Amino acid sequence: MLNTLQKTLLKLHNNKLFEFSVIGVIIFSSLLIGVKTYDLNPNYLFVLEVLDMGVTVFFLIEILLRFITTPNKKRFFHNAWNIFDTLIVTISLIPIDQSEYALLARLIRIFRVLRLVSAIPELRLLVNALLKALPSMGYVLLLMFILFYMYAAVGSFIFESINPVLWGDISISMLTLFRVVTFEDWTDVMYETMIVHPWSWVYYLSFIFFNAFVFLNMMIGIVIDKMQQEHESDEEGVHERLKRIEKKLDSLAK
Amino acid sequence: MLNTLQKTLLKLHNNKLFEFSVIGVIIFSSLLIGVKTYDLNPNYLFVLEVLDMGVTVFFLIEILLRFITTPNKKRFFHNAWNIFDTLIVTISLIPIDQSEYALLARLIRIFRVLRLVSAIPELRLLVNALLKALPSMGYVLLLMFILFYMYAAVGSFIFESINPVLWGDISISMLTLFRVVTFEDWTDVMYETMIVHPWSWVYYLSFIFFNAFVFLNMMIGIVIDKMQQEHESDEEGVHERLKRIEKKLDSLAK
Amino acid sequence: MLNTLQKTLLKLHNNKLFEFSVIGVIIFSSLLIGVKTYDLNPNYLFVLEVLDMGVTVFFLIEILLRFITTPNKKRFFHNAWNIFDTLIVTISLIPIDQSEYALLARLIRIFRVLRLVSAIPELRLLVNALLKALPSMGYVLLLMFILFYMYAAVGSFIFESINPVLWGDISISMLTLFRVVTFEDWTDVMYETMIVHPWSWVYYLSFIFFNAFVFLNMMIGIVIDKMQQEHESDEEGVHERLKRIEKKLDSLAK
Amino acid sequence: MLNTLQKTLLKLHNNKLFEFSVIGVIIFSSLLIGVKTYDLNPNYLFVLEVLDMGVTVFFLIEILLRFITTPNKKRFFHNAWNIFDTLIVTISLIPIDQSEYALLARLIRIFRVLRLVSAIPELRLLVNALLKALPSMGYVLLLMFILFYMYAAVGSFIFESINPVLWGDISISMLTLFRVVTFEDWTDVMYETMIVHPWSWVYYLSFIFFNAFVFLNMMIGIVIDKMQQEHESDEEGVHERLKRIEKKLDSLAK
Repeated sequence: MLNTLQKTLLKLHNNKLFEFSVIGVIIFSSLLIGVKTYDLNPNYLFVLEVLDMGVTVFFLIEILLRFITTPNKKRFFHNAWNIFDTLIVTISLIPIDQSEYALLARLIRIFRVLRLVSAIPELRLLVNALLKALPSMGYVLLLMFILFYMYAAVGSFIFESINPVLWGDISISMLTLFRVVTFEDWTDVMYETMIVHPWSWVYYLSFIFFNAFVFLNMMIGIVIDKMQQEHESDEEGVHERLKRIEKKLDSLAK
Repeated sequence: MLNTLQKTLLKLHNNKLFEFSVIGVIIFSSLLIGVKTYDLNPNYLFVLEVLDMGVTVFFLIEILLRFITTPNKKRFFHNAWNIFDTLIVTISLIPIDQSEYALLARLIRIFRVLRLVSAIPELRLLVNALLKALPSMGYVLLLMFILFYMYAAVGSFIFESINPVLWGDISISMLTLFRVVTFEDWTDVMYETMIVHPWSWVYYLSFIFFNAFVFLNMMIGIVIDKMQQEHESDEEGVHERLKRIEKKLDSLAK
Repeated sequence: MLNTLQKTLLKLHNNKLFEFSVIGVIIFSSLLIGVKTYDLNPNYLFVLEVLDMGVTVFFLIEILLRFITTPNKKRFFHNAWNIFDTLIVTISLIPIDQSEYALLARLIRIFRVLRLVSAIPELRLLVNALLKALPSMGYVLLLMFILFYMYAAVGSFIFESINPVLWGDISISMLTLFRVVTFEDWTDVMYETMIVHPWSWVYYLSFIFFNAFVFLNMMIGIVIDKMQQEHESDEEGVHERLKRIEKKLDSLAK
Repeated sequence: MLNTLQKTLLKLHNNKLFEFSVIGVIIFSSLLIGVKTYDLNPNYLFVLEVLDMGVTVFFLIEILLRFITTPNKKRFFHNAWNIFDTLIVTISLIPIDQSEYALLARLIRIFRVLRLVSAIPELRLLVNALLKALPSMGYVLLLMFILFYMYAAVGSFIFESINPVLWGDISISMLTLFRVVTFEDWTDVMYETMIVHPWSWVYYLSFIFFNAFVFLNMMIGIVIDKMQQEHESDEEGVHERLKRIEKKLDSLAK
């Protein structure tokens, strides 16, 4: 009997309409979060609170349904997206004293918007693809960090006396260098130090060039890497076919 | 007899000279729009009005010619560019009381410039190609919107008390975040919140990194996607030829 | 006898040392131009004048040598780089009254720096490649111009009363829009108009998106186009070889 | 006996644990550099000094170990990374009077961070790859420099009287032009000169366009170049296989 219940629930869960209503509720809960950022009449706040609880209950039911309808319960937690959804739902179930940690409760609810990613298969695929691209950027980011660290140390030693707000210590200097790399009022930073050290433009220009050069090559590298991967599988098909042709020729020759 | 008229008109319409004169009139009408943005002697305004009416009449005649010379009238409206042209011409025929809705009338006439796109085949091809690239960007833009929405909600909750002009509600916060992404005086926004929350640079830097990362990967993804498409058709040719060779070898072996 | 002279001169002209000395003189003449931008002692100015004349004479001799040593005089002017060099040398020979058109004379001499491009074969190749890439960008630039023109017309009609310095007429508006596209203090422009028209952010954001979208696709398009070209020649080799194999098989089958 | 010592040391040196401890010490020495940028209690400064000396000694031992364990001593200095490490260690051994050249001593120690690149093989590979990409950008950078030089000369001649701080001489003008290229408050520079020379926007826009055009084409050029290289090796495999098939067919035909 439990089995038939499971089947009925599975039917419900795989229903296209159910799927859309889940996405609908996620969007609705996202809108609720957005609405709260506006100055609202206190009367409406209560309504929002009730709607919020409704969304929490719906999410809880949906995740339970998904868990029940999974034949192999262990595999449920092998799926990172299921863990992610469960975590978000569980956290929002923790009763937080509204008066004290109201802000924290609000911030946690914002993560509900991310459920949109787990609910739409295309977005899930996209995020998976993005995460796969991460490791290939790892060492380049490390190289850039070393560049930032060295320049920040130099900047902090030489320019601290000029403007401690920008060059006070190595972490502030790294923030200032990030600002220079985004070209955000970087000449203001440079002109200020050029009054004391007229040659300090070398510092800024070399930093911009190094970073642009490393970044550019990383980008190009990734493009070529990915293309090579996709190309190789194609090429392999041709090579296999050619091998077969050669073997046939060899047997013909015999 | 009507048929011979249609043929004559078709001859006229396909005439290279006619085509160029259409483009000429569109450019002329675009220049008229530009001229009106300058402070003009009221005497000239009347001249401009007359010229404008002349252009409207010419456009009407041209579109009627095109409609008449189309053998299958239904197919005329299957072409999106024909609908587009008809719409622009029809709208500019609506008599608008110049005194009241003068601005609206002017704005509608600006769309005439777009007729240049429909009149030059190369631009038409280009816009068609651009529109085809749109869907492949759709889900990435949705992902970016989710990122913006979440960060805007967080920003609005935490930073509203610091500067309501930038972080008043979620929509203003999203505009502020777009400003941050374009690196436009983003450090001013950051330094302001860092006075109250010294760790808020994490918020800005993570947002910039996430967006740059998603955007970069989208770009690379589209490049690879498109190349794969074009490459596959080439590869197919090779595969087909190889298959034929294999078959011939098989029949030879027999 | 004239022939032997020509041969001697050709030998001289093709001499590696002569080539380097030409490049050396061009660099020297470029440095002269740079030196003149500094505040100089009037005594040195005379020295510079003499050196300048020396450079002019050297350039004249070099171009004459090149002309004499060209066997077919007609082909000399078929080479665009020769025409370019001749033009630059000829213009600097025109005696300009230093007092009156001193600035013009100076500006013309700056073009001598460009002779470095014509003197170094690698740079000549690079510029040729760049010029070849130009036409494929033509229609995209036209499309962008139409976009700028339309938005500038709209901006001029709606925002002129708010800030005539930025939106006075269509040409100033186009300059303002170019500024917006480069993200240069674009929020200042936007916030100013948002006070009067709160929805005007739609105008700026849509413009930025359209431009970024068109530009991005152009870039991607060119990359794919060029790769396709290079790829095709490779692919052709494979196809030809495959065709030959098929023919051989057919003759074997017979 | 010396040989067995060498073998023992080689064993130690190739030990995975030793490798990690080297990386650990480099990171520790980098952190020491960072810590010194903060305002510290003088008591701690002495501790830092001692730790610094410890790091120096460790580095010296490590490089000696590496030298001893290299069988062919000549080949040790054929490896650029070995020379690089030796140099950094040797320089930090030079006793510098702390009171006089304290800043210099600090700056030299910053280069120790770069030892991280030589210690991690993946980073070494990455930097090697970056250095290989450098020459292919050389001529494009030269072309850009010529562009900068010419525009800077023109700018210095025409705009010097307007703002000598930005256009005083050719080197300052080049810095100003670099600022324009990074879009950093470039409209401020332009609006200032447009008051005197209303057409000077042509100067800025043409410069931005030329640079963007050259840069874009360089980037695309490098992408295609690299892909072509990798693609060719693949293609060669196919061609070789095809050649073999042709030969076999020819021998079959006989």
